[in-house]
Amino acid sequence: MQLGLVGLGKMGFNMRERIRRAGHEVVGYDRNPEVTDTASLAELVDRLEAPRVVWVMVPSGDITRNTITELSGLLSAGDLVIEGGNSRFTDDKVNADLLGEKGIRYVDAGVSGGVWGLENGYGLMVGGAAEDVELAQPIFDALRPEGPREEGFAHAGPVGAGHFAKMVHNGIEYGLMQAYAEGFELLAASDLVENVPETIKAWQRGTVVRSWLLDLLVRALDSDPELDDLRGHVEDSGEGRWTVEEAINHAVPAPVISAALFARFASRQPDSPAMRAVAALRNQFGGHSVVSAGPSSGTGSTQS
Amino acid sequence: MQLGLVGLGKMGFNMRERIRRAGHEVVGYDRNPEVTDTASLAELVDRLEAPRVVWVMVPSGDITRNTITELSGLLSAGDLVIEGGNSRFTDDKVNADLLGEKGIRYVDAGVSGGVWGLENGYGLMVGGAAEDVELAQPIFDALRPEGPREEGFAHAGPVGAGHFAKMVHNGIEYGLMQAYAEGFELLAASDLVENVPETIKAWQRGTVVRSWLLDLLVRALDSDPELDDLRGHVEDSGEGRWTVEEAINHAVPAPVISAALFARFASRQPDSPAMRAVAALRNQFGGHSVVSAGPSSGTGSTQS
Amino acid sequence: MQLGLVGLGKMGFNMRERIRRAGHEVVGYDRNPEVTDTASLAELVDRLEAPRVVWVMVPSGDITRNTITELSGLLSAGDLVIEGGNSRFTDDKVNADLLGEKGIRYVDAGVSGGVWGLENGYGLMVGGAAEDVELAQPIFDALRPEGPREEGFAHAGPVGAGHFAKMVHNGIEYGLMQAYAEGFELLAASDLVENVPETIKAWQRGTVVRSWLLDLLVRALDSDPELDDLRGHVEDSGEGRWTVEEAINHAVPAPVISAALFARFASRQPDSPAMRAVAALRNQFGGHSVVSAGPSSGTGSTQS
Amino acid sequence: MQLGLVGLGKMGFNMRERIRRAGHEVVGYDRNPEVTDTASLAELVDRLEAPRVVWVMVPSGDITRNTITELSGLLSAGDLVIEGGNSRFTDDKVNADLLGEKGIRYVDAGVSGGVWGLENGYGLMVGGAAEDVELAQPIFDALRPEGPREEGFAHAGPVGAGHFAKMVHNGIEYGLMQAYAEGFELLAASDLVENVPETIKAWQRGTVVRSWLLDLLVRALDSDPELDDLRGHVEDSGEGRWTVEEAINHAVPAPVISAALFARFASRQPDSPAMRAVAALRNQFGGHSVVSAGPSSGTGSTQS
Repeated sequence: MQLGLVGLGKMGFNMRERIRRAGHEVVGYDRNPEVTDTASLAELVDRLEAPRVVWVMVPSGDITRNTITELSGLLSAGDLVIEGGNSRFTDDKVNADLLGEKGIRYVDAGVSGGVWGLENGYGLMVGGAAEDVELAQPIFDALRPEGPREEGFAHAGPVGAGHFAKMVHNGIEYGLMQAYAEGFELLAASDLVENVPETIKAWQRGTVVRSWLLDLLVRALDSDPELDDLRGHVEDSGEGRWTVEEAINHAVPAPVISAALFARFASRQPDSPAMRAVAALRNQFGGHSVVSAGPSSGTGSTQS
Repeated sequence: MQLGLVGLGKMGFNMRERIRRAGHEVVGYDRNPEVTDTASLAELVDRLEAPRVVWVMVPSGDITRNTITELSGLLSAGDLVIEGGNSRFTDDKVNADLLGEKGIRYVDAGVSGGVWGLENGYGLMVGGAAEDVELAQPIFDALRPEGPREEGFAHAGPVGAGHFAKMVHNGIEYGLMQAYAEGFELLAASDLVENVPETIKAWQRGTVVRSWLLDLLVRALDSDPELDDLRGHVEDSGEGRWTVEEAINHAVPAPVISAALFARFASRQPDSPAMRAVAALRNQFGGHSVVSAGPSSGTGSTQS
Repeated sequence: MQLGLVGLGKMGFNMRERIRRAGHEVVGYDRNPEVTDTASLAELVDRLEAPRVVWVMVPSGDITRNTITELSGLLSAGDLVIEGGNSRFTDDKVNADLLGEKGIRYVDAGVSGGVWGLENGYGLMVGGAAEDVELAQPIFDALRPEGPREEGFAHAGPVGAGHFAKMVHNGIEYGLMQAYAEGFELLAASDLVENVPETIKAWQRGTVVRSWLLDLLVRALDSDPELDDLRGHVEDSGEGRWTVEEAINHAVPAPVISAALFARFASRQPDSPAMRAVAALRNQFGGHSVVSAGPSSGTGSTQS
Repeated sequence: MQLGLVGLGKMGFNMRERIRRAGHEVVGYDRNPEVTDTASLAELVDRLEAPRVVWVMVPSGDITRNTITELSGLLSAGDLVIEGGNSRFTDDKVNADLLGEKGIRYVDAGVSGGVWGLENGYGLMVGGAAEDVELAQPIFDALRPEGPREEGFAHAGPVGAGHFAKMVHNGIEYGLMQAYAEGFELLAASDLVENVPETIKAWQRGTVVRSWLLDLLVRALDSDPELDDLRGHVEDSGEGRWTVEEAINHAVPAPVISAALFARFASRQPDSPAMRAVAALRNQFGGHSVVSAGPSSGTGSTQS
C-alpha cells in the first residue's frame, strides 16, 4: 500500500526503509533536502491516492501540532493521519478533534525500539477506531517485529490509548534501567566481584533478569568496562514525568518509577539546593557562632 | 564426571535431571526417601571417587551450615564442596574456613532460573579459586544454558563472589518486577487502555522493555487477565534485604531496589502502624476534643 | 476594620471568632442558617463599606470558582477578594483575571494551623500586589499568631505565590508526618523499647526532632498508646499531589515527599494490583503448570 | 552528686558545664591537657567515691570499646558506667557483659541536642535496669531541659534501648531534614515565590510544619539567603544507616528515611556510576556504531 511519512529523522528515516523493504510505497517528506522524497507536504499529499494514510513522525509538541494543522488543510475526508511521535496522550484528543472537523481520521501510535527497529522491528501500541487501525494494518505489520502479530502490536483502545500505553512502557523502562544501574554500581563497589562486566554478561542466559536492556548494558560494557567514557548526567524526555503524573492522577503508588525519574533529575544537578539545605541544618547543630566549645580530643563531632 | 548432590527439592531435583541428561553421573541425597539415591550423606560420599565434588542445594541458614559441617567430617582433603543455595555471601568465608581446616575445597555458586532451569538451563555465578572452579566446570557447563559459556556462567571472583553476584542479581530482580508491576497497575487504572493483557503482550517483541520477566507476566495474564486469583501479598526471601544492606555498607544509593523491597513489606501489612500514625496526626489537626466548631456547610475539612 | 467572610465551616467559623476577638467587624455568610450572619452574599456585600474586603473560605474547586464568580457580580471596582481555601495556585491567576475585569482586586492566602488556629493563630502566606496586601493587613494581623509578624505571616510574591507556598508547606508536612510515622512503627516493632509512647514523649524537649507535629503525636498516643483505635487508611487532599507535580515540572528531586504521598495511596488499597503482579511473577518462577517437580524435603522454595 | 566524665569534646565539654551549673561535682578526663581535670582515667576513678558513676562520651567504635575496657579494670563492683556516645545499640549488650563480669553496672544513653544542649538541655533516652537509671537520675535531670521530666527524658527499656531510641530519633531526623530541604529547593525553583527566606521564616508560628529544625533553617537562611556559601555534600554518621537496617530486620517499610539516606549518599558522588549506566543504556538506544541514520531535520532524538 501507499504511505506518506512526514519526518525522516533517526526514527522516520529507518521506518521508511523498513516499510519499503516490506514492499510498500513510501513517500517521505522532511525539510532536509538530502533525505526528503518531496518538496513539500502538499506534494506528498498529491502523490498519494485516497484514502490517504499519512504517518507523522516529527518532534512532539508544537512541531507535531503544526504539522497536524497543516495536514488538516491538505487532506480530505476519509484520509487517515497516524501520529507516531513521543507525544503526550492528552494531545491526541485535540489532534483528533482538529482533523475530525474535516472528516479526517486519526490514530495515535506509540513506537518503541530505537534505531534497532530497522532490523528488529518496532513494538507498536495504537489507539483509535477499529476501522481506522485496520486501514493501516499493513503498515503496522511492516513495522512490527517478525513473529506473532500480538507479540509486537496492540490496538490498545480509542484515540490516546496508544500514547498512553507508550507512556507507561517508558515509565517502566525508567524503572528497569535504574534497577540495573543500581546493581551495576553495587557490583562495582564490591571488592568481592572482581570482574563486573563478565558477571553481568553471564546474566544474559538462564537468569531471571535477562532482557534486551541487559543485552544493551553488556554491549556498553564490552567497549567501556567501567563506563568511564561517560558522565552520569541523564536527560529525561517527558514520558517518565507523565507516567508519574498519571500515577498521581489515578492514586497509583509509583515509588520505583518516580525514584528512577528523580535519580535523573539529581544526576543533572552539579550542586543540589536541597542537599545544601541539609548541610546547612547539620551546620546549625554545630552552632559555631553561638556556642564556643573548648578545643578537645574527645567526641569530634557534635551529636544531633 | 561424578557429582554428589545434596538436596533434591524443587531446585536440586531438576538440576540432577539436567546434569544427568548431559551424561554425568549424579548421586543424589535427600532425606525424602522417594527422591533420594542414597540412604545417607555417608553413603553418598562413599559412592564417589576422589577427588569428590559435592553440590549442596539445601535451604540456606542452619540446614546449609549443618550439611557443610557434616560433610567436613566425611570428605577428604582435595575434595570440593559447591554451595549453591540462596545463602548470604558472608556465610561463604565461614564455610570455606570450616572445610579448609580439613583441606577440603569450597566454591559458592549463585543459581538463577527457577524451575525453568531444567529446560532453559541455569544462570550461574561462582566464587572460588580458579583451579577449584575448573574442577567442576563440566557440571557448570551441564547446568548453564545452551550458547556461549560466558553468557550464562561467570567466575565472579574469590569465595563469596558467587553469592554476592547472585544477591545483586536478585536485588535487580526486585526492582524490575516492581517496575512492571507499577506499569501494570497504571494501565489497569486507566480508562483509555481497554485491553491491558493484550497491550502488555505486545511488548514482547521490538520494545525496550522486552524481557523474560515480561514473558512471565504475559503468561500470568493469559490465565488470569486481571490477576484477581491472587492476593497482593508478597514475601521476600533475603537477597533483597541483603542487597539494600550492602548498598548501605558501600554508600551506594539504591532508591529503586529499596522501594521494591519496602513495597513487599507493606503488602504484607493488613493495617500499617506507620499509616495509623499519619492518620492520628491528621485527626489531631481536627482537634475535636479541644475545639468545638459550629456545624456548617462551609469548608468541610480543616486545612492543615 | 470590616471584613466579609464567606464560608463558616471548621476553618471559617474559627477565623471569624479570632478576627472578632481582635476587635474587627466580621460579616459572615454561610448557607447553613445556624452559623451565618447574613441571608445571602448580596446582603453580605451590602453590609460592607467600600472598599470592601471579602475573604472566601469555601471548599476548593467548583465551589470556590462559583463563589468568586458570584462576587464579581456583586462587588465594585477597588474592592478586594481574598481567597483563603486549599486551592491550587494555578487557579489564582484565573480568579484574579475574572475579578480584574471589573477592577476588583485579588489576594490569595495560604492558611495553616487547623482548628488550633483559633487559639494559636494561623500561619499565613499571601500572594498579590503590595497595596492589596496592605489593605488587608489588619485582618492578617488578627489571624496570625502572637509574636513578630514575620514569623507567622509572609507576603510571598504576586498572585498565586500564597497558595504555592502553602502547597509546598503541605508537601513538607507529608514528608514530616511520614518520617515520624516510620520511626513510630520501628519503635513499636522493636523488643528493646518497652514504652514507645513515653519514649516519643521524651522527644518533646531538647531533641533535634521536637516540633508541633511531634506534640500532636504525643497527644494522640496519650489517649491511644498503640494507635489501634484507628485504621491506617489515609486520605490526601491535593497539595501533596500538586507538590510532586510541581517538583516534576521544575525537575526538582522529591523522593521524600513523593514517598510520603505514595504511602498514603497504598494505605487505601485493600489489595494492591501492583503487588498482585509481583506475586504473579513469583508464582511463574515456580512454573507449576509446566514443570512437575518431585516431592522433596530439599530446598523448599525455588530460587530465582 | 559526683560524676566522672570521660571525653570533653564538643558534647562532653558542654555537658560538664551544664551539670556543674546544676550543682554537681564533675571530674572530667580528656587526653587534651587544656580541658581535662585529671591526668588519667585512673586518677579520675580515684577521685570519685563509691558507688562511682562514670559517663563515657567519646567517639563511638573502637575508642568507646577501649575506654569501657580500661574502665572495667579500674572500677569496682557496684559502680556504674553510662555510655552516652553515638554507639550502635548492638554494642551495648557487649559493653554491659564486659563490665558485668566485674559486677560493674551499665546504662546506655542517647543524647540529643547538639551544642545547643548547654543552654537548652539535652533530650535523653536511656536503657538499663531501673535501679541503675535511678542512681544517675540527678545527672540526667541536670542534663535534660527545663520542664516536666517526661518531656525530655525517658527510660526506654533495658540495656540497648537508649541507643535504639536515639537511632530511631536520628532516622526520623534524616527524614525531617530532607522534607524541609525538598520544600526549600522547590520554593527556590519557583518564579512565583519571590522571597524564599521570608516565606520559610513565616512558617515558624502557627503552621503545621513549625519545629526546631525549621528554626535552624531560618537561622541558616538569615545569614546565607540562598545557601550558596555551602556545598550540597552531606555526610552521614551511622544512625541513618542503622535505622534502615533495623527497619529491614523488622520488615518495617521505611521509604522516607531510606530516601533521605540515599540522597546523602548521592550528594557525595561527583559522578554516579549508576547514572553512567543509565546514560550508557540510553546511548545504546541510539546504536550509533551499528546503525547509520541519515542526517535529518526530523525527530532529533530516537524514541525508546
